[in-house]
Amino acid sequence: MSRVTAARIVADWGTSNLRVFALGEASNLLAEASSDTGMGKLTPDGYEPALLELIGDWLDANRVTPVIVCGMAGARQGWTEAAYRCVPCTPVGRPFARPRVASPLIEVFIVPGLSQAEPADVMRGEETQIAGVLAASPGFAGVVCLPGTHSKWALVKDGRVERFATFMTGELFALLATQSVLRHGMASEGSDEAAFDAGVADAISQPAGLAAELFRLRAAGLLADLPAAAARSRLSGLLVGAELAAARPFWQENEVLVVGSGALTELYRRALAGLGAQARAISGEKMVLLGLVQAFERISAETA
Amino acid sequence: MSRVTAARIVADWGTSNLRVFALGEASNLLAEASSDTGMGKLTPDGYEPALLELIGDWLDANRVTPVIVCGMAGARQGWTEAAYRCVPCTPVGRPFARPRVASPLIEVFIVPGLSQAEPADVMRGEETQIAGVLAASPGFAGVVCLPGTHSKWALVKDGRVERFATFMTGELFALLATQSVLRHGMASEGSDEAAFDAGVADAISQPAGLAAELFRLRAAGLLADLPAAAARSRLSGLLVGAELAAARPFWQENEVLVVGSGALTELYRRALAGLGAQARAISGEKMVLLGLVQAFERISAETA
Repeated sequence: MSRVTAARIVADWGTSNLRVFALGEASNLLAEASSDTGMGKLTPDGYEPALLELIGDWLDANRVTPVIVCGMAGARQGWTEAAYRCVPCTPVGRPFARPRVASPLIEVFIVPGLSQAEPADVMRGEETQIAGVLAASPGFAGVVCLPGTHSKWALVKDGRVERFATFMTGELFALLATQSVLRHGMASEGSDEAAFDAGVADAISQPAGLAAELFRLRAAGLLADLPAAAARSRLSGLLVGAELAAARPFWQENEVLVVGSGALTELYRRALAGLGAQARAISGEKMVLLGLVQAFERISAETA
Repeated sequence: MSRVTAARIVADWGTSNLRVFALGEASNLLAEASSDTGMGKLTPDGYEPALLELIGDWLDANRVTPVIVCGMAGARQGWTEAAYRCVPCTPVGRPFARPRVASPLIEVFIVPGLSQAEPADVMRGEETQIAGVLAASPGFAGVVCLPGTHSKWALVKDGRVERFATFMTGELFALLATQSVLRHGMASEGSDEAAFDAGVADAISQPAGLAAELFRLRAAGLLADLPAAAARSRLSGLLVGAELAAARPFWQENEVLVVGSGALTELYRRALAGLGAQARAISGEKMVLLGLVQAFERISAETA
């Protein structure tokens, strides 16, 4: 394999992982790499070595290569804090944070996250995926839903994020399924589509009842031998249903683009379609790469 | 101090702790003791030694002393499973489980928990406190609310538990405050009454919004420097408010007796009063002791 020399490098630096992409002059993808050196494992002086470990071979020894980073590297407890930009605004824009680096071969730009004053909310990383959505579908007007540990719903119009909301659905699911009393009688994997759908439907029709529904999973395991995979899928359905009920102002009258990967994205898309929403699913990986390219172009335009 | 000899012994054996009481012939309290050998720390053959460790000195060497136990010792993963009794029924009644014991000086009776078929629900331990409520207030008709890790609401009428519901409020609070992203910016103690009240009010008025409210605590910490004690109290208020909203069919048209101890019981009583419910608070410790005496009398009557 011949050696790759990157014209620019982009990186998605989350809480758990670092993913880097070597791009050519036309922002074409040349190579990619990843490691588990997420924000959760690093102190501020650990970022540059962790980055160089992955990208060192892609650098041209005769010039400075720009590196554009999105995600938790810009958090207060990250590499260098990138102050939030307040919506309504374009998903990606200045000021980019500029961590000091020791290497003469790179200059690093961190994409700022977005904030919302009322109701208070923040995002870091998802703004770059939203920029990717707009790059893939210029003129897109509607709602971008990004399911995950902290699901985000963003209303996008005229190239800007108008408002957004965060739901701790994925984190709640993980805590309840593995740390709470519900872990007894809950499968660690496997799924039961009918149980998921019933959970969504019950949460949507009785949003105030979630607090009562949770312990019933344990009781049904004890009294009625509720199968462990059904318990897990019903818990997931109840939590996703509660999110969908609370996010109704986003999806009720807008086209929804569900951005992510794998089974979870499809579950959201299907649940939304079942509620009569217009929903499509697209790849989150592609969107983050497209969004990082957008961020690079914004930086080049400004520094030209 | 002279040596205590118990005519009978009663025990509240929970997940975390074991509490024992030496009673005289008139079921008067002679002595009490406790240890941290809860169900969570024991295998089935650890129960008898853990019990004898606390009560050994109270036993009369010339006869068999009855020991009445309520709580998780009767769970499937406890000492000996005490099959649930299905509501509607009296809070305490036969069949009591009879674990085999090696000591010739004790005979042990475990109070069965209660179950409900639809919606599926179970309790273990709280039924004994409800029996205590009926002993303290014969003819009580209304709702017994027992706040805690798994809060219970029970509708009591004609000496029977008609129906009940469980809410994982305390467990959710502990998981969110100490294990989730909300732990950043959350005090480990301290309280802010106004923040609690606002949380209750917001959850009651918008029960579908709980999923959205949680992450806002984190965002408000980042954006508006929400004080850590206010964040903790607001989280508690949101979860208690969600419980109260879902439990409305219980408290709306009934007198409520909040059974427990300390600050939490008072928070529930105050929140209920604020919603226009008729609510009083009484000591949970007293109720469990009264209920265990009731259980003993039921056993004596049956074995006489």
